[in-house]
Amino acid sequence: MKNTVTIKDVAKKAGVSISTVSRVINDSKPVTDEIKQKVLQVIEETGYVPNPLARSLVTKRSQLIGVVVPEVSDSFVSEILNGIEEIARMYDYDILLSNTYSDKEQEMKSINLLRAKQIEGMVMISWNLEEDHVDFIKKCGIPTTYISKTAREFDVPTVSVNNESATYDMTKHLIEKGHKKIALVMTSPADTALEMERLSGYKRALLESNIEYNESLIRYADVDYAKGYEAATSILEGDIIPDAIFVTGDEAAVGAINAAFDKGYNVPDDISVAGFNDVKIAKVYRPKLTTVHQPLYDMGAVAIRMVIKMIKGEEVEEKKVELPHRIEDRDSVKNR
Amino acid sequence: MKNTVTIKDVAKKAGVSISTVSRVINDSKPVTDEIKQKVLQVIEETGYVPNPLARSLVTKRSQLIGVVVPEVSDSFVSEILNGIEEIARMYDYDILLSNTYSDKEQEMKSINLLRAKQIEGMVMISWNLEEDHVDFIKKCGIPTTYISKTAREFDVPTVSVNNESATYDMTKHLIEKGHKKIALVMTSPADTALEMERLSGYKRALLESNIEYNESLIRYADVDYAKGYEAATSILEGDIIPDAIFVTGDEAAVGAINAAFDKGYNVPDDISVAGFNDVKIAKVYRPKLTTVHQPLYDMGAVAIRMVIKMIKGEEVEEKKVELPHRIEDRDSVKNR
Repeated sequence: MKNTVTIKDVAKKAGVSISTVSRVINDSKPVTDEIKQKVLQVIEETGYVPNPLARSLVTKRSQLIGVVVPEVSDSFVSEILNGIEEIARMYDYDILLSNTYSDKEQEMKSINLLRAKQIEGMVMISWNLEEDHVDFIKKCGIPTTYISKTAREFDVPTVSVNNESATYDMTKHLIEKGHKKIALVMTSPADTALEMERLSGYKRALLESNIEYNESLIRYADVDYAKGYEAATSILEGDIIPDAIFVTGDEAAVGAINAAFDKGYNVPDDISVAGFNDVKIAKVYRPKLTTVHQPLYDMGAVAIRMVIKMIKGEEVEEKKVELPHRIEDRDSVKNR
Repeated sequence: MKNTVTIKDVAKKAGVSISTVSRVINDSKPVTDEIKQKVLQVIEETGYVPNPLARSLVTKRSQLIGVVVPEVSDSFVSEILNGIEEIARMYDYDILLSNTYSDKEQEMKSINLLRAKQIEGMVMISWNLEEDHVDFIKKCGIPTTYISKTAREFDVPTVSVNNESATYDMTKHLIEKGHKKIALVMTSPADTALEMERLSGYKRALLESNIEYNESLIRYADVDYAKGYEAATSILEGDIIPDAIFVTGDEAAVGAINAAFDKGYNVPDDISVAGFNDVKIAKVYRPKLTTVHQPLYDMGAVAIRMVIKMIKGEEVEEKKVELPHRIEDRDSVKNR
């Protein structure tokens, strides 16, 4: 049983023309307060729902913002999504979500799909943003904020933490706790801007403490548990057994803890392990994970706020927003 | 720089009328193959994108399916979502997602919002479905499949596992491994249909093995880690120390493992712990969690398939679909 009240019924009952009702609904042209009140009252009484498709054609606005995500089940993504959703709701926008499984072709399809749904703006979350994405989105003319490991390489609005300084801070934290052989497992390929920033922060902390940089303690893995396990195993089979392993992703860090465990090392008694992001598993795992806290909810909130500003033609003061990180000191790192 | 090719340009270039182009796009009325080919070729050449809003008004179809979720970051939900999304894509539907944080008022708002976006169908995922939801959705006339702890109480399409038999199987598994004092922590209130089914499966397994049912070993908690920790702590402070704790949610089961640990018990050496769902943390946690595997991806896939069938007016043979579960035997349960 669908609601069958039409704009015609409302007009008739309110004793006004259809175009007057339309003006009230769309706030498009001035109507006297008295008539406005009357129309709104009839809408209330009849439970009339304006046809949003017809309405969109009039107002040319869909009130929709698209979000492209690499994997909705990844907790890094879903915590950002919570921030996006709440702020969108506050500004009366709805979210159209498209999941890409981090496949580039699907990412391009998703952008196109969202565009065909008349989204007014977009948040693009991608593990590996490429020039093709950026060019295509710019060509479509969709106001977009990017959250991606590689987003800082492009002249586009981005939200992130300062990865150089975050990696520096954690490396320094490990050094202050007495660690000297600190392995670094990075969760993306060596050639991304992000990993270069992180490596630079790591090296800066070592240099400051006169600890020699040793390439054999560096690995490039991937964000997931299995890859973290693999990378840590490979380190522990090397010539130098580290006293700490710093993994730039929490799930991969849990993989590293388990790898150490399976090689007969206790964490943190024999080897400390630190993570990056501070997603849910960092708080739940035992030992609780010492990690770099990224304000994921806030990152989503800021990203969508930037998009809404761009949609409304408001000025976006800072295109490359950096939010504060902090070291979350838990149980997987021990004083030596 | 927006794509500015219009239907008029396409018609002109193809040497046909606008309504012919519209017919080709919407497949609404017969057009000769030759003309169709010509029009499609021009569309290809010009990169014309049909205006989907105008198109929806013609075809009266949005190709959108709404999904209401209690919490996108919950892994139970996100694994179901993966199934929903892939099957939707296969049938050329797009997903509009609305997150409710399990708040009833927001759930009603989400349904209304999705309805205003002209969704053709809906999957409603809710921890605690109530009669109000069902009545409202029925009134809106939206073809909907429900995934909820309480969905089986209503005359609506649902997808689940057989919870009575799943709980029976795990209880029996624990008994076969030599456990006699099996605590049960349920992850929702006592009065839901789901928990009554689960309690009944638990009791049936005990009865078959002549183990006396003891109410002091039963707790009602919630799905999350902290509540599982709390419930297990309360059990371990009771008069009877169980040899196994069966928690009907994986995250809450991890909470129980940590509670046991903090009370000085080793899992599984002193106490076995079993979970329910088989989400990611069950595979990653140490000890790896013995749990009831629910086919979450398949549940999402089947739910959306039912919705699509209903949209197309095809017959849905079975309204209460039960998918097979299995016991996933890992390391948190030990032979005694």
